[in-house]
Amino acid sequence: MTSRLFGAIEAGGTKFICAVGDSSGNISKRVMIPTTTPEETMPKVFDYFKEIQKEIKLASVGIACFGPIEPDPKSLNYGFITTTPKLPWRNYDIVGKVQKALGVPIGFDTDVNGAALGEYRWGAAQGLDTFIYLTVGTGIGGGGMADGKLLHGLMHPEMGHIFVPHDKQKDPFEGVCPYHKDCLEGLATGPSIQKRWKVKSALDLPPDHEAWDLEADYLAYAAANYTLILSPKKIILGGGVMKQQPLFPTIRKKLIAYLAGYINQSLILEKTDQYIVPPGLGQNSGICGAVALAEKAYGE
Amino acid sequence: MTSRLFGAIEAGGTKFICAVGDSSGNISKRVMIPTTTPEETMPKVFDYFKEIQKEIKLASVGIACFGPIEPDPKSLNYGFITTTPKLPWRNYDIVGKVQKALGVPIGFDTDVNGAALGEYRWGAAQGLDTFIYLTVGTGIGGGGMADGKLLHGLMHPEMGHIFVPHDKQKDPFEGVCPYHKDCLEGLATGPSIQKRWKVKSALDLPPDHEAWDLEADYLAYAAANYTLILSPKKIILGGGVMKQQPLFPTIRKKLIAYLAGYINQSLILEKTDQYIVPPGLGQNSGICGAVALAEKAYGE
Repeated sequence: MTSRLFGAIEAGGTKFICAVGDSSGNISKRVMIPTTTPEETMPKVFDYFKEIQKEIKLASVGIACFGPIEPDPKSLNYGFITTTPKLPWRNYDIVGKVQKALGVPIGFDTDVNGAALGEYRWGAAQGLDTFIYLTVGTGIGGGGMADGKLLHGLMHPEMGHIFVPHDKQKDPFEGVCPYHKDCLEGLATGPSIQKRWKVKSALDLPPDHEAWDLEADYLAYAAANYTLILSPKKIILGGGVMKQQPLFPTIRKKLIAYLAGYINQSLILEKTDQYIVPPGLGQNSGICGAVALAEKAYGE
Repeated sequence: MTSRLFGAIEAGGTKFICAVGDSSGNISKRVMIPTTTPEETMPKVFDYFKEIQKEIKLASVGIACFGPIEPDPKSLNYGFITTTPKLPWRNYDIVGKVQKALGVPIGFDTDVNGAALGEYRWGAAQGLDTFIYLTVGTGIGGGGMADGKLLHGLMHPEMGHIFVPHDKQKDPFEGVCPYHKDCLEGLATGPSIQKRWKVKSALDLPPDHEAWDLEADYLAYAAANYTLILSPKKIILGGGVMKQQPLFPTIRKKLIAYLAGYINQSLILEKTDQYIVPPGLGQNSGICGAVALAEKAYGE
């Protein structure tokens, strides 16, 4: 018997990644489609999967989607991308459209909750009921689980935008967030690094540049706040900025310093390298997460 | 048939409140016992309940306890008060001792998770699966639920100690937290108000004193971070400092300003008075929470 196969859509703000995956987290037939308008992007997505459906039966399709979205199945707007600043996508019924085009059950959540679920199934969060997945790239987004369930609530977390201490004497940069200026995303996202240090890409800065110590400052404050509010068993840090690997030990050291012994847990104080970790799935958290969302939709 | 009756212990850092409650949240036979040492305080607690057990069958007893505690039934240290700065109580097996003395099932959680559960059963959080309960008094502590389950994770939240922006030009006060100096608790707890403004009690300050605007600043930043990380459907603010009722509208106004439209939810933007609220149970969240913990222990 062959393994059950799932369609996976990692719907990002700049590109859609579509693929096929199985219950072991294996990914195949991956394509990349640029995110322009729904009218242009979505038919390519549909065509890709329709071609696949000619030869393969897809059990379901998962969509790990840029937000904000409406993930509550009880809501009238379930399955919509809602108030995104990407105007063509605002109030777009992505679940409805994909469901209609492909005729299979659809799993749906934020890109970061998807990635969290992927890490839970096959990556760094296996066996953990409470953890956080944060991506630090062109934006900062976070998802995760509490007691085995993906974080939802009123909407879904937007934990990239939390407020952290900003010492303006040390770092007079005003921040790039169009909403909050110097929230975490405003201070620590890739574009903020580019603008503050006047470089084309954050990763152009050498590992010993002071930019990285400052970056670790903000991410350590964020990790401290996540720790204090959700009490996670792991914080997974992914995304382009985190490719600067020396960030990890610096964030761990600063996190311990900021918490100052208040959370007396050996995982945080001694085994910090098991607490603040890169994604187990590397670049694949998101697309594997879409597979996991599909799997969940099929199972339910 | 008479209603089932439960024992309730609200174990606080300065006093234990013991009472009897029922499944409607009615409280009777309340006593207050000062928190000194386990050797002195606990026998009084036992005697109180043993007297009651002579006339009433208690189905179970709930303990809503000052922390940090070990709330995980799978842990070897389940039921202990752990690394509290109150040294006589450090590593005290409160659940074991109460269970042994009274011979009934014991429900156990933090004081603030207890209060959250009380609000969920009979107060302001009825019908809500995801919400936060914060108490602002001599300390700041928070608990709550995500998707219908009390927040636990690695340990339990300690969300009173999160880091928030501290504009030292506007507020040069260095903070009173012995661990973090100017975390939320360091900046916004009752003792910080007393020390900053040199008053005996925060509530001695008139409602139009600038202290309250500053206090609302910090609590609004905290509410913003809780909103962004957990996406709660309500934030309940209790505790002695919140008796300064004009704080509520100011916190709501500042929360909306700080979030700057990013969380586009009418509950936050328009019905903010249903989002940031005082406890439905008034002073009784904690003791009712202990009843609810007992009820839960009996049911499970």
